[in-house]
Amino acid sequence: MYVNEQMHHLGSNRSVIRELFEYGKIQRAKVGDDNVYDFSIGNPSSPPPKAFQQALIDLLQTMDPISLHAYTSAQGDLSVRRAIAEHINGRFGTAFTADNLYLTSGAAAAITLCIKAVLLPEKNEEVLVFAPYFTEYRTFTEGCGGKLVVVPPKMDDFQIDFLAFEAALNPRTKVVIVNSPNNPSGVIYSEETIVRLCDILRQKEKEYGHPIYLLSDEPYREIVYSDAEVPYLTKYYKNTFVCYSYSKSLSLPGERFGYALVSGEMEDWQNVYYAVCGAGRALGYICAPSLFQYAVARCLGMTSDLSSYRVNRDLLLDSLTAYGYHCATPDGAFYLFVEALEKDANAFSEQAKKHNLLLVPGDDFGCPGWVRVSYCVSTDMIRRSLSAFQALAKEYGK
Amino acid sequence: MYVNEQMHHLGSNRSVIRELFEYGKIQRAKVGDDNVYDFSIGNPSSPPPKAFQQALIDLLQTMDPISLHAYTSAQGDLSVRRAIAEHINGRFGTAFTADNLYLTSGAAAAITLCIKAVLLPEKNEEVLVFAPYFTEYRTFTEGCGGKLVVVPPKMDDFQIDFLAFEAALNPRTKVVIVNSPNNPSGVIYSEETIVRLCDILRQKEKEYGHPIYLLSDEPYREIVYSDAEVPYLTKYYKNTFVCYSYSKSLSLPGERFGYALVSGEMEDWQNVYYAVCGAGRALGYICAPSLFQYAVARCLGMTSDLSSYRVNRDLLLDSLTAYGYHCATPDGAFYLFVEALEKDANAFSEQAKKHNLLLVPGDDFGCPGWVRVSYCVSTDMIRRSLSAFQALAKEYGK
Repeated sequence: MYVNEQMHHLGSNRSVIRELFEYGKIQRAKVGDDNVYDFSIGNPSSPPPKAFQQALIDLLQTMDPISLHAYTSAQGDLSVRRAIAEHINGRFGTAFTADNLYLTSGAAAAITLCIKAVLLPEKNEEVLVFAPYFTEYRTFTEGCGGKLVVVPPKMDDFQIDFLAFEAALNPRTKVVIVNSPNNPSGVIYSEETIVRLCDILRQKEKEYGHPIYLLSDEPYREIVYSDAEVPYLTKYYKNTFVCYSYSKSLSLPGERFGYALVSGEMEDWQNVYYAVCGAGRALGYICAPSLFQYAVARCLGMTSDLSSYRVNRDLLLDSLTAYGYHCATPDGAFYLFVEALEKDANAFSEQAKKHNLLLVPGDDFGCPGWVRVSYCVSTDMIRRSLSAFQALAKEYGK
Repeated sequence: MYVNEQMHHLGSNRSVIRELFEYGKIQRAKVGDDNVYDFSIGNPSSPPPKAFQQALIDLLQTMDPISLHAYTSAQGDLSVRRAIAEHINGRFGTAFTADNLYLTSGAAAAITLCIKAVLLPEKNEEVLVFAPYFTEYRTFTEGCGGKLVVVPPKMDDFQIDFLAFEAALNPRTKVVIVNSPNNPSGVIYSEETIVRLCDILRQKEKEYGHPIYLLSDEPYREIVYSDAEVPYLTKYYKNTFVCYSYSKSLSLPGERFGYALVSGEMEDWQNVYYAVCGAGRALGYICAPSLFQYAVARCLGMTSDLSSYRVNRDLLLDSLTAYGYHCATPDGAFYLFVEALEKDANAFSEQAKKHNLLLVPGDDFGCPGWVRVSYCVSTDMIRRSLSAFQALAKEYGK
């Protein structure tokens, strides 16, 4: 084989999530759509706001089509970046401008560009993540020539285990990714956690003599069930990137639109921003889809109707707890992280399949022994699935 | 500075094209919009077909919005890939299926993914391009850890200089990029050129004992002024990638939609395809924008009205030739490649600016001594610019 083996490996090894999804399609054909309970996928189940669909149609009907579909500047249309910066400032009391924003094809692109911009592979620099973590962080990091370092969580509340964190930090640590509300646990990091995290990072920056960049990946920022404020990290730490996507808040995952924000308080931020722009060029990004740039700018602050996720969460959490399952505190996102009823979450997931319950084992998220339940599904499917969850628990003596 | 210097360099060094474009904005404010003749940019000046705009609106008005905006599979929606494969087969007599196609965010992404998929940086493998070449090939190649090797053209007709080509080939050559119709020369490679190119590649593959991948970058395939057929390269050479974009044919450059085709006759094609999929993951591509996937599938075979480009080409070519300029034969794309009237094309471009003519020096395209004139502009602007071209020629004694 003459191809790049790392790329081949990534492309030929289906993710567990994708495997389950494909299994679900086959199983549905066998036993009927209504009898398979697919909790594997994170596709929003609430439609985009009507006003957003209307904004797209209005743009298509009224804006000069040549301008509408033309290249924007690589970092995104200036007026769109301005509008987004003002929106962020209004919401979080920050003082960003268009120049802090680089619009991207979704958060995946934003994360990849930020890592590529600051990581020095020749120095074996590392990206640190907290388990449970979104599995593709590993892919993005290794694709940029970096090494992913995983810090296990405190298993009682899934907040950061600071002893483990300090043990993992070292002079090669260049980026620390925080994902709160978290995929797959649904946990939100408390302000206390964030303050302590930032204190340690500042201390280590001094000790190592170079910046450690905090990267806040926050596609689930709007999907929050508690009264707790999700801390906005640029206010706690200067060397912060914010990577955002409209995939979940506006239910647009297939359209690929988000941004990387380079905090203006970041040390040498202009040069970091240039490096993000350069990474965009090097990785073949030209600009974020222009129609979606203009449409999102007209709908800032709107979200899809997120109330069904709350209904789903409450129903699942209450029911599963009643059946004897133990779950991480799901304050946000649309995932419930459930302790498997046997040590091996893969075996547990196989057992669940016998009840036509498709649950993603937590091993690839860095948390063996747990499974992820994506509840961005119809409430009706959840209702139908409950007896299967109960039967599964009974098999384990609950 | 603690950022990745290669990325910083790419992001902070504006391209000559961008510099000229910014200069044009300032100059227009000074002397008036109508008195600056900006031939710097390659943004289509013909709107998308009305049917395409209508397809977008229909999808927004009639398709379930959750499905419309959902993630498609990473390689693109199956039905869309099927439709594109069938369209290609109908047009070129090929026998591709959905499995040969990986839909991308434009041709830039497609090229980057193909290079990343097959290049082995640890073996110092090289990507070979023929001058004049699209400047970002260097960026994409170096971003994947490869080395770009530039082969100068035959200066009389801008076809391939095969002596120079054979001299540049070596056991590290892994990818050869062909861009016909060419940006920036407008030249189309004749079938004779392609046949000879492929014969040499096959011979060298045997000699080196590994595949050399031919990558056909063809966003301008539909913009052709001669009767000559633009050869479809999978029919001439097995180890061929076709990278295509709808940016120019449907006037959608800002929306980012295209594909990489991995020829089914390619040696070990399935593994190469997997590696393309893996590169997509590693570089943070999730899927091509879903709305545009579905809309393009409804409009296959359509193009924007390309007739104005022909009018522009004829007007410019005839006029410039009459004024004493010498141009490459512009059989396609929307660029005229003009020999500068002094040895240093940068100095010539500066001189042209005094007449408010914005012409891109060819140095970055690998052809010092020439300038690129993008004629995807209004015919009216070209008419107004002619006296400036004439005055410029006169200064050089023409």
